[in-house]
Amino acid sequence: MGTRILYIDPICSDEDIGLFASEFNQIVDSITTVDVVSIGNKPGPLHLEYNCYEVMVMPDIVRIVKQAEAAGYDAAIIGCFYDPALRACREISSKMSIVAPAEASLHIATTLGECVSIIVGRQKWIPEIKENVHKYGFSHKLASIKPLEMGVLDFQQDHQQTMNRIRAAAREAIERDGADIIVLGCTAELGFYRQLQDELGVPVIDVSLASVKYAEFLVNIKKNMSWSHSKKVGYQSPPEHEQKAFRLFP
Amino acid sequence: MGTRILYIDPICSDEDIGLFASEFNQIVDSITTVDVVSIGNKPGPLHLEYNCYEVMVMPDIVRIVKQAEAAGYDAAIIGCFYDPALRACREISSKMSIVAPAEASLHIATTLGECVSIIVGRQKWIPEIKENVHKYGFSHKLASIKPLEMGVLDFQQDHQQTMNRIRAAAREAIERDGADIIVLGCTAELGFYRQLQDELGVPVIDVSLASVKYAEFLVNIKKNMSWSHSKKVGYQSPPEHEQKAFRLFP
Amino acid sequence: MGTRILYIDPICSDEDIGLFASEFNQIVDSITTVDVVSIGNKPGPLHLEYNCYEVMVMPDIVRIVKQAEAAGYDAAIIGCFYDPALRACREISSKMSIVAPAEASLHIATTLGECVSIIVGRQKWIPEIKENVHKYGFSHKLASIKPLEMGVLDFQQDHQQTMNRIRAAAREAIERDGADIIVLGCTAELGFYRQLQDELGVPVIDVSLASVKYAEFLVNIKKNMSWSHSKKVGYQSPPEHEQKAFRLFP
Amino acid sequence: MGTRILYIDPICSDEDIGLFASEFNQIVDSITTVDVVSIGNKPGPLHLEYNCYEVMVMPDIVRIVKQAEAAGYDAAIIGCFYDPALRACREISSKMSIVAPAEASLHIATTLGECVSIIVGRQKWIPEIKENVHKYGFSHKLASIKPLEMGVLDFQQDHQQTMNRIRAAAREAIERDGADIIVLGCTAELGFYRQLQDELGVPVIDVSLASVKYAEFLVNIKKNMSWSHSKKVGYQSPPEHEQKAFRLFP
Amino acid sequence: MGTRILYIDPICSDEDIGLFASEFNQIVDSITTVDVVSIGNKPGPLHLEYNCYEVMVMPDIVRIVKQAEAAGYDAAIIGCFYDPALRACREISSKMSIVAPAEASLHIATTLGECVSIIVGRQKWIPEIKENVHKYGFSHKLASIKPLEMGVLDFQQDHQQTMNRIRAAAREAIERDGADIIVLGCTAELGFYRQLQDELGVPVIDVSLASVKYAEFLVNIKKNMSWSHSKKVGYQSPPEHEQKAFRLFP
Amino acid sequence: MGTRILYIDPICSDEDIGLFASEFNQIVDSITTVDVVSIGNKPGPLHLEYNCYEVMVMPDIVRIVKQAEAAGYDAAIIGCFYDPALRACREISSKMSIVAPAEASLHIATTLGECVSIIVGRQKWIPEIKENVHKYGFSHKLASIKPLEMGVLDFQQDHQQTMNRIRAAAREAIERDGADIIVLGCTAELGFYRQLQDELGVPVIDVSLASVKYAEFLVNIKKNMSWSHSKKVGYQSPPEHEQKAFRLFP
Repeated sequence: MGTRILYIDPICSDEDIGLFASEFNQIVDSITTVDVVSIGNKPGPLHLEYNCYEVMVMPDIVRIVKQAEAAGYDAAIIGCFYDPALRACREISSKMSIVAPAEASLHIATTLGECVSIIVGRQKWIPEIKENVHKYGFSHKLASIKPLEMGVLDFQQDHQQTMNRIRAAAREAIERDGADIIVLGCTAELGFYRQLQDELGVPVIDVSLASVKYAEFLVNIKKNMSWSHSKKVGYQSPPEHEQKAFRLFP
Repeated sequence: MGTRILYIDPICSDEDIGLFASEFNQIVDSITTVDVVSIGNKPGPLHLEYNCYEVMVMPDIVRIVKQAEAAGYDAAIIGCFYDPALRACREISSKMSIVAPAEASLHIATTLGECVSIIVGRQKWIPEIKENVHKYGFSHKLASIKPLEMGVLDFQQDHQQTMNRIRAAAREAIERDGADIIVLGCTAELGFYRQLQDELGVPVIDVSLASVKYAEFLVNIKKNMSWSHSKKVGYQSPPEHEQKAFRLFP
Repeated sequence: MGTRILYIDPICSDEDIGLFASEFNQIVDSITTVDVVSIGNKPGPLHLEYNCYEVMVMPDIVRIVKQAEAAGYDAAIIGCFYDPALRACREISSKMSIVAPAEASLHIATTLGECVSIIVGRQKWIPEIKENVHKYGFSHKLASIKPLEMGVLDFQQDHQQTMNRIRAAAREAIERDGADIIVLGCTAELGFYRQLQDELGVPVIDVSLASVKYAEFLVNIKKNMSWSHSKKVGYQSPPEHEQKAFRLFP
Repeated sequence: MGTRILYIDPICSDEDIGLFASEFNQIVDSITTVDVVSIGNKPGPLHLEYNCYEVMVMPDIVRIVKQAEAAGYDAAIIGCFYDPALRACREISSKMSIVAPAEASLHIATTLGECVSIIVGRQKWIPEIKENVHKYGFSHKLASIKPLEMGVLDFQQDHQQTMNRIRAAAREAIERDGADIIVLGCTAELGFYRQLQDELGVPVIDVSLASVKYAEFLVNIKKNMSWSHSKKVGYQSPPEHEQKAFRLFP
Repeated sequence: MGTRILYIDPICSDEDIGLFASEFNQIVDSITTVDVVSIGNKPGPLHLEYNCYEVMVMPDIVRIVKQAEAAGYDAAIIGCFYDPALRACREISSKMSIVAPAEASLHIATTLGECVSIIVGRQKWIPEIKENVHKYGFSHKLASIKPLEMGVLDFQQDHQQTMNRIRAAAREAIERDGADIIVLGCTAELGFYRQLQDELGVPVIDVSLASVKYAEFLVNIKKNMSWSHSKKVGYQSPPEHEQKAFRLFP
Repeated sequence: MGTRILYIDPICSDEDIGLFASEFNQIVDSITTVDVVSIGNKPGPLHLEYNCYEVMVMPDIVRIVKQAEAAGYDAAIIGCFYDPALRACREISSKMSIVAPAEASLHIATTLGECVSIIVGRQKWIPEIKENVHKYGFSHKLASIKPLEMGVLDFQQDHQQTMNRIRAAAREAIERDGADIIVLGCTAELGFYRQLQDELGVPVIDVSLASVKYAEFLVNIKKNMSWSHSKKVGYQSPPEHEQKAFRLFP
């Protein structure tokens, strides 16, 4: 029985769907299908650098997750390194695995290395990312968070220039901050990890690919051992009748 | 020049507006006006016990905050102890003070005491609240978080019974957990603090009132010293032209 | 009914009383009176850079606080950024609010920003200040503590030179350490905040002014909600009869 | 191309090999082969409850890992919840993934839940396990470590009695300590998780099975993205010539 | 050359001098002389349960330390478990070792065990003691702080009753809190440790004796390796000329 | 009655025995005898820079400790700054004090100073050392860990060159990182501390000498107060009959 994963690119444009899909196809297991959707081609944010953009698309993320569960998906991925609405999505679903890039990639990175450096777009992003690093438990393994002073929409403009800037930041992370593993802290930093890790000699984690593989992993342990998100305390679902009364997730 | 505060009761009902307004009127400064609004009498959550309810009203909270700034309010309060969309609201505004109940009441409580116990509705709430307690820096001053196993909508049903249950939990917090100050960790636990603190002999913080007074305080220091939320890093506002292009906050 | 605040400049000289009073008068509420006193014009320390100077004036601080309570003051401020004898003063009083500059300014700074840099006089001060930053819960929000290698008595000698050195350190804090808010970590760094924050584009907290406003705030919530320092555990007062038997606070 | 995993039962007896193998066969992927070996039927410890037993078998563990890499295994699992010699094994190998039960199961548990309780044999084990919980970053997600006062060799003696005692401890963890997920903190607590999680309504992690699935996952991401243990800093391998000169791993 | 230690009983009574001296004589090295002094038979506190009592005797403590250095003592001990004026005493001296009971006994306890329980007089003491436990770095090794609800002056009233109460609290610490070592958290809990540790089967640290032995140790490493309190940053001494100008330590 | 200490140089060569012995003889108490042994002149590691070397000699360390106890030694020192097998050695012995260089020197350093910098050989060592610094409780007092990029076997090759490199690193630690005390983080950095501390003006801790003095101290408090490693929880010894059955420590 195949594994069906939904990757949500939480922006209002279908532009990058093909790019994500093509990258994912190169690394998924033979039994896995990944569908990529955006919030839709409608007015709304084209990136989530600001928390106030994030919250505008959160209701859509939650609705898509709820529909994905109804449609039989095994897992959903919230494709932004801020991990927006992660708790909400775990509450609203009860059969699916819910995966978010920062959580997934940091769990992987701290198993593979001990001193993690995260390469981000702007300094503006750092406080929210730091909050997540702590929440997941990895503050003491954080070597540095290094901003490139590039925006989400810049990363794919000039591949070579982006590569050069990430490489320079990563080198500094390794040499000056003592990093032994690099996390590319934005889902738009897609298509760079392989060349970089060949050059740098340390693992370079692409957070979208990390999310897809982590989703496969969670689905796998669910199928085999029935281990899934605990519904006992913090990820408890709201009562069905209340959801209906509030007319929230039609 | 007067201080105008907007208290947002982030649920889809105007039912409690009068109750909040009447409580606030008893404790505000003479120059202060507090207006209370809800998300509106429309389909939607009547409480935010679940994070997936929270995120459904976050866009409304952000829009209301943006409009409040345009309307000349000096401060806005996000009236839920989960402090939903706090970062987003600080980003979207640039002149107002943005206040949230957990942040405000914990700053007050840790100045007045050293061992804080928070009385909450359900155990379900604890993980999200604990994340906030850490985020604000007060984990090492937390004596306990004690659930009453009551929902938000239960608190105002039978005043005497609620009082009894809070009192019992607070007594246990003081005697067993070493608490020297009590925080009533839900904005719906309104109308209990004064009798309780008379009986218990420790300060009992009503988090809605704490928010209003903290809002007055932030407005006061802004007026006098021009100290306001830093716009340099994590609370930076998105560019106006981008907000327009994304048609997010009409 | 007016608010009466006593600001204690805990040194053995009345020299700066006028300077403090004049600064405070510009920012207090209309109902507030701030009286400024020193330890007195007598032999003793003219600054508290050393902890062994601090402890020499602590008994005087406690006695002044006890007398201030008898004289009907609503709040007392211990005017040194080491926050000397804070616990003792909260014990000895039972009606007043007791405010200290590091506690007050850090609570404010961490509400307004997320990455705090403290500009201090000498590296010597750093360990004691760091202890306080942790005690108040803000270690994870500390971007840096930057010494100017100037003493307390140097700050007011050449206003322009001090301004230049603070500005240079603050710039480095913002650009290199990621600070989004600056705290001037000495009560003698008076008279600089406003020009600096205009130039730097981030809030610059004057810790003496912060203390006065925080005192007004604590008095305000005491008057309105009867919230005051908890006397249950760590701020418990010694029995009156024992104080008399020990003849400590005549 | 298949995935070959070596599970090392680090005790001096082959007695449990069949039990482990049969459990693993029920849950591995179709491409996976797991071979189970012990340290050998020779004098030596039959359990590792004491750290001084652990260190006696560590050289054997490291030698087996080195040989496994030569033999073409993709991953090796160190089958004891103390995670003995984990760093050493990551150093000595350079192509394999090295997995240890506490690390693997805690990464899984903190993705699935937020309040972890670990059910262990004896109180004696707790300090060493706590050190590991911190090392991996999960202290703030630890609800409790609960000892059954049973030894490693007792768990499989009377299945029903062990089940009863684990169940009682787990119930207490959920009800009193707020746990939302249970980790069975010993590889000998094998064969209990499924019935328990059905009864308790929360995930119950069998740490041996968790290790095997985590090994498959690490091998998978290595095959697909070439992500493997960083050899840059803490997991660096000793020079080959030095290993030979020291005649350590023949 | 002998080692001369001054033990300061920081209260205004000579009453316990003999008791301390006699206990110390049983455990000091042959080359050691310990002199015991109080603050003097004068009006003032007979115990330091309150921080406001502590600060009243701090100037005397500092003066005694300064005189002790002039008189050629090798070490001075500040005989109160709150470790009052520790930084001040390290500043004011430059040749002596300065020892305080909480610091000394916690360093010893965390070398000998891993889960420390401190038996104190009253709950009132706990916040200040907890601050010190953190300052010294041992929060994660603290099993519990257990109050007996007895005052400093009660401990020596009825030896048998005090013994019984300490024993009961220590038993609970071991059985319920997982403690493997007990610290008697008040210098007045003198004369109990030996019988208790024989009965309980865990080390029981008498904090006055711990201080004396730690003082001998610090003097020993100073004599042999010239290791002494660093005067570079936080324990820097004030300039001699300034001390004179301020007429602080005649 | 004399104090007999066994210093274990945990490498397979007797080469440095004389050097250690001669250094120790200059600083021990008159009643102390220190015997120095290595693992033996046999094939095996000549340094323990890699954890996989460490674990190869751990069984020998434990056996030597067990024999040392039988031979009547009062204390044993595990002479490597990684503190290998510390828990195992405390388990296997019940009368001796067990000392390890990192634990001993960090307890001393944090009593003498507040900002510790550790000078190590290679960056490779840092993650394991950091784990220990946390385990002992001193993360918040760590100014920096500075690698010289020299191996263990290099330190004694060219005394002057090693001195120069340590001095340069230590100066940087003091001036840039704010260190007020230096720890030479390798037992092979022997013979440098005295000249360095004379030049630098801060204490420089030789970790082998620190271990010997700490061993004397632990023996002293054991003889006088019967305080020794707690055998109640984490340092519990395995049952004698089981050790025999497992034929581990002949």
